[in-house]
Amino acid sequence: MAKEITTRGDNYSQWYLDLVNKADLAENSAVRGCMVIKPYGYAIWEKMQAQLDKMFKETGHVNAYFPLFIPKSFFSREAAHVEGFAKECAVVTHYRLKNDPDGKGVVVDPEAKLEEELIIRPTSETIIWNTYRNWIQSHRDLPILINQWANVVRWEMRTRLFLRTAEFLWQEGHTAHATREEAVEETLKIINLYADFAEKFMGIPVIKGIKSENERFAGAVETYCIEGLMQDGKALQCGTSHFLGQNFAKAFDVMFSNREGVLEHVWATSWGVSTRLMGALVMAHSDDNGLVLPPNLAPIQVVIVPIYKNKEELDRVSAVADQIIPQLKARGISVKYDDNDNKKPGWKFAEYELKGVPVRLAMGPRDLEKGTVEVARRDTLTKEVLPVEGIDEVIEKLLADIQENIFRKATAFRDENIRKADTWEEFKTLLTEKGGFISAHWDGTPETEARIKEETKATIRCIPLDAEPEEGLCIYSGQPSAQRVLFAIAY
Amino acid sequence: MAKEITTRGDNYSQWYLDLVNKADLAENSAVRGCMVIKPYGYAIWEKMQAQLDKMFKETGHVNAYFPLFIPKSFFSREAAHVEGFAKECAVVTHYRLKNDPDGKGVVVDPEAKLEEELIIRPTSETIIWNTYRNWIQSHRDLPILINQWANVVRWEMRTRLFLRTAEFLWQEGHTAHATREEAVEETLKIINLYADFAEKFMGIPVIKGIKSENERFAGAVETYCIEGLMQDGKALQCGTSHFLGQNFAKAFDVMFSNREGVLEHVWATSWGVSTRLMGALVMAHSDDNGLVLPPNLAPIQVVIVPIYKNKEELDRVSAVADQIIPQLKARGISVKYDDNDNKKPGWKFAEYELKGVPVRLAMGPRDLEKGTVEVARRDTLTKEVLPVEGIDEVIEKLLADIQENIFRKATAFRDENIRKADTWEEFKTLLTEKGGFISAHWDGTPETEARIKEETKATIRCIPLDAEPEEGLCIYSGQPSAQRVLFAIAY
Repeated sequence: MAKEITTRGDNYSQWYLDLVNKADLAENSAVRGCMVIKPYGYAIWEKMQAQLDKMFKETGHVNAYFPLFIPKSFFSREAAHVEGFAKECAVVTHYRLKNDPDGKGVVVDPEAKLEEELIIRPTSETIIWNTYRNWIQSHRDLPILINQWANVVRWEMRTRLFLRTAEFLWQEGHTAHATREEAVEETLKIINLYADFAEKFMGIPVIKGIKSENERFAGAVETYCIEGLMQDGKALQCGTSHFLGQNFAKAFDVMFSNREGVLEHVWATSWGVSTRLMGALVMAHSDDNGLVLPPNLAPIQVVIVPIYKNKEELDRVSAVADQIIPQLKARGISVKYDDNDNKKPGWKFAEYELKGVPVRLAMGPRDLEKGTVEVARRDTLTKEVLPVEGIDEVIEKLLADIQENIFRKATAFRDENIRKADTWEEFKTLLTEKGGFISAHWDGTPETEARIKEETKATIRCIPLDAEPEEGLCIYSGQPSAQRVLFAIAY
Repeated sequence: MAKEITTRGDNYSQWYLDLVNKADLAENSAVRGCMVIKPYGYAIWEKMQAQLDKMFKETGHVNAYFPLFIPKSFFSREAAHVEGFAKECAVVTHYRLKNDPDGKGVVVDPEAKLEEELIIRPTSETIIWNTYRNWIQSHRDLPILINQWANVVRWEMRTRLFLRTAEFLWQEGHTAHATREEAVEETLKIINLYADFAEKFMGIPVIKGIKSENERFAGAVETYCIEGLMQDGKALQCGTSHFLGQNFAKAFDVMFSNREGVLEHVWATSWGVSTRLMGALVMAHSDDNGLVLPPNLAPIQVVIVPIYKNKEELDRVSAVADQIIPQLKARGISVKYDDNDNKKPGWKFAEYELKGVPVRLAMGPRDLEKGTVEVARRDTLTKEVLPVEGIDEVIEKLLADIQENIFRKATAFRDENIRKADTWEEFKTLLTEKGGFISAHWDGTPETEARIKEETKATIRCIPLDAEPEEGLCIYSGQPSAQRVLFAIAY
């Protein structure tokens, strides 16, 4: 191996951090809790952004940009929201530095104190609904379907690259509607869009559901989510879509005259996914050799490594590569030819395995004689020797096959790791010995959920949208329950 | 007119603000100095971003992301930099709010004071070079060619939408090189790239030059810039590319071992353009009817407005539109069909003029009989009636023609407004009566430049790269000068 990484079996958590660091995805910065997203990691994020942005636009959304700062008083307007978001946040109190009178660098200028402190946005409902007030008068101004790509800050005490950082990148959609039905429809449309993205692009099967009250977004009437399962049996929330009712319209006094000319409060949704998805992508598919990237999000889909002893051999291999590369590019496949002379082929093989490049082609003098190329796939680590003739078509199919296989494998793993528990003992044993999702009856109260969390660290990940009604008794309290919900220990 | 806008002749500055507001580009937010970029304005910015990003990648650059926060002490490391940037900035001093003991909302928790204050980045040289220290050991790690798309904050006292705002969006490139020559080459490569973008996409002719010491970036050895001229005769800096020498490498202790194994400090460049370009775009081309957008950056390139009296007529017009639209789209032309029944055609005509849509097609029953369509171009406000047959090809050529015409017109205006002054009286008269660029001799001292600025508000916009050497006497001091420089009053 080019770079040592801890194995999953040894220490899953360290394996994750090793991968993120050594595959050049991200690293910790000099600012506590904030990360540097390195070029290779950022290239994956750009692919995610491009695809999501396309899907948002295809469903009628447009992008805009709202301020980074939110006046402190805005948070107090929505009672639940302030409890959830205004506490652990970055507060701007001054707007100037001055030279230290003692001659040691710069100090905050006490005379440049803001009248009202500004909060770095942890989420933008407040500033956006304050703006919407001026944009909405009539039902003709609705719906507003806006998305924003932005950075946000939440002052997390325990951070982990991508999964939980003080600053992170995300998109936040904020829509305004004339009716409750339309807003609920939008909320559902987006959670379905997120699920499609997770499954078709990230290769991660997700369960769509509704959050319990304890896990609901602060200020929402209902939070929909998609939940994925990582290889260590922990769940990871991959995206949320909130039906906000009229809460923010009431807090910011946003009203419209309906078709009958009567004033009503506007209905709202908000929804987002973040760079946290990078963490999910790493943890869902990768192995002890490194990243396994789904071809649909891989910055480099195919790498070609020449095997040669001298300049003459390299030239001959390069001549064949020069034929293959344009054929692959014509099919929209991103390809890198690595003829760097400073590294040996073995080092390169390990490096591109670490980086999760889906397909590796290796070509040496013997291949040239036979008109063949060695094709290695990252997901199965299998190799075969194939004719150069027609290789572009073969690789296009192979990439589709890898994409599908990654999803199939993750789905099989996820399905094996949803287990029913019907008693409290069974629940605790499953959780300790197997992990994964546990489908169990719950009495519907926040108190029970809180006690289960306290005793086991497991939370209700969601009430699945497709769950069948089933009469039962709460595993914890023994009270009646109308359907099973999914518990798990979560990131 | 659908919405009244001030004319340029009446009040240029108000005309600009009217356009930005009424064409739905941006508006002031509840946070002093921060703007909301509205969907139509953001769509133009997205087109700028996409094109620039493509050009950066074609020249070997990759994107990454660095933290929003910079520890205060980082600024003190580079002496010139701290003077230029660390003064008017947003300072984060606390990381928590708590419920007001008096029960009135939330207050800053005095116990959550940061040990070291964090500055919201006004530019990222310091945090990036602090990071590069760990990325660079050998000449093999160079060059690093990284760009970042980000928001930055500079606490401006007098703000104006897009032109000067406390928070703005930009890209900042930060490259690291093994030699001075390579870094200078990069600096020039980028200023040429910016000039190409300004001219071919924004339709704005720019003068490439070097900044005088007074106008140089704080921390740079040399600042290259592109300067455009607005219709009121004021100059606007459209982009800068800085050769930073080894200043930041020395400040952050970034060294590499060269091919001979000797340790050296790394050479640096940084370069950026921002949402300020939106202001330039508006001011360079628009007229008293509204925006005039170059087709290469117009979110909607063609709008089709049906003219009809009843549903039957509308259906017939729509049937023809349904033929034209896919033909236009197949040529990569973005088109909007506006059959909104709430607005009259006249209102729509004025609205799309205001929004700067380059081409408007209008079709009514009489056109259907004759197989024609009325084609109006925004730049010249001329109309002609043309056959529907083959209209897609005609429009494709027309869009190219409009793009070229906008650039030609702006170039003619700019060229007419570069004037030579050989005496101080002449200089002052030209500045007051004509504005524009004044080409004049200068003795090369910061003191003279400062005095000229004090007396006339004019600054040296640049020392043009293509200027011919010419012996002369400084218009202000009478001291010898080796070449003319360009003065102007600037935004």
